[in-house]
Amino acid sequence: MEFSSKLLENVVYEISQLPGIGKRTSLRLALHLLRQPQEQTQKLSEALQKMRNEIKFCKNCHNISDVEVCEICSNPNRNEEIVCVVEDIRDVLAIENTSQFRGLYHVLGGKISPMDGIGPNDLNIPTLIEKVKSGKVKELIFALSSTMEGDTTNFYIFKQIETYKIITTTIARGIAVGDELEFADEVTLGRSILNRIPFENSLKI
Amino acid sequence: MEFSSKLLENVVYEISQLPGIGKRTSLRLALHLLRQPQEQTQKLSEALQKMRNEIKFCKNCHNISDVEVCEICSNPNRNEEIVCVVEDIRDVLAIENTSQFRGLYHVLGGKISPMDGIGPNDLNIPTLIEKVKSGKVKELIFALSSTMEGDTTNFYIFKQIETYKIITTTIARGIAVGDELEFADEVTLGRSILNRIPFENSLKI
Repeated sequence: MEFSSKLLENVVYEISQLPGIGKRTSLRLALHLLRQPQEQTQKLSEALQKMRNEIKFCKNCHNISDVEVCEICSNPNRNEEIVCVVEDIRDVLAIENTSQFRGLYHVLGGKISPMDGIGPNDLNIPTLIEKVKSGKVKELIFALSSTMEGDTTNFYIFKQIETYKIITTTIARGIAVGDELEFADEVTLGRSILNRIPFENSLKI
Repeated sequence: MEFSSKLLENVVYEISQLPGIGKRTSLRLALHLLRQPQEQTQKLSEALQKMRNEIKFCKNCHNISDVEVCEICSNPNRNEEIVCVVEDIRDVLAIENTSQFRGLYHVLGGKISPMDGIGPNDLNIPTLIEKVKSGKVKELIFALSSTMEGDTTNFYIFKQIETYKIITTTIARGIAVGDELEFADEVTLGRSILNRIPFENSLKI
């Protein structure tokens, strides 16, 4: 595409560097901003810079935070004996939205993936092991995605903490609430039968 | 969604103000930027601000430009006797990409739409009429979209310049090159038969 303006071309290029946004969408967004009041672009651009320069990661759980220790970790009402291990901050948001979990989190920042050159030390695994060693944690819940990389990561962590006396659990896999059995994939359906639970428990929520 | 960081929340809100981007996509983009080097956010945010503050509109054709008169209008190789009337700058880009047009453009900035309160004077129509009155233009090509608003706009401009001796044309509507006839809609197919052209002409491109 030939642009009549270098300024526009720059913006289109920079926006199209974002994942899932091509040149066409990028141009549409740039032209939209040009039609809107100047403050909108101003606010967007300032918010971006402020976030990138000032954001912190909680030193306890590695969640995104504006302060040293995030709101979840510093909340005295949360049970610090239960730690849920997740891949990234979006998983924290998703679990928080359920209002079913009152423990703390530990954000790994990814999964072990030899193919992409990501080893245990590239992730927040050492600090997790430290946390377990300290003796404060009684239960570790693995809530990584059930892919090969997720399973590898779970297994690696499990092996590292095997000798410490803590409970390790993993979130339940099964048919989604409201889903029809006939459309479920075999693996999920199979697992949901193997891991069946007492009927009374299903009445609790 | 409850965010653990106000800075992140702000960015997610600002990005989701863009058309076609919801909260979820917005969060994905924000987290992507956090994982990238700081310069990427810096460049994006600077490009946005620079564009919004410094961009100009060509005083001749109202196309987006970095200078007073855009590259197309100031190019001596272009035929200023033929003016193509388009809705917005994206149409200019699209036509320029075909390399089939060597005349100038006139960007209206929208279509007449009483429903949205857009009248002829909210668009760049007066300057177009002036251009025709000046006598420099020999042919006006209407290239607006063929919607009710597009047709209204075409007709309005046509009525205003009727008394001046210039040729007015409209771009050909028909079956797209490479398309199967059986899948074409009736109106388009009908028009393509009514507006058939001498076979020799179709060999030119």
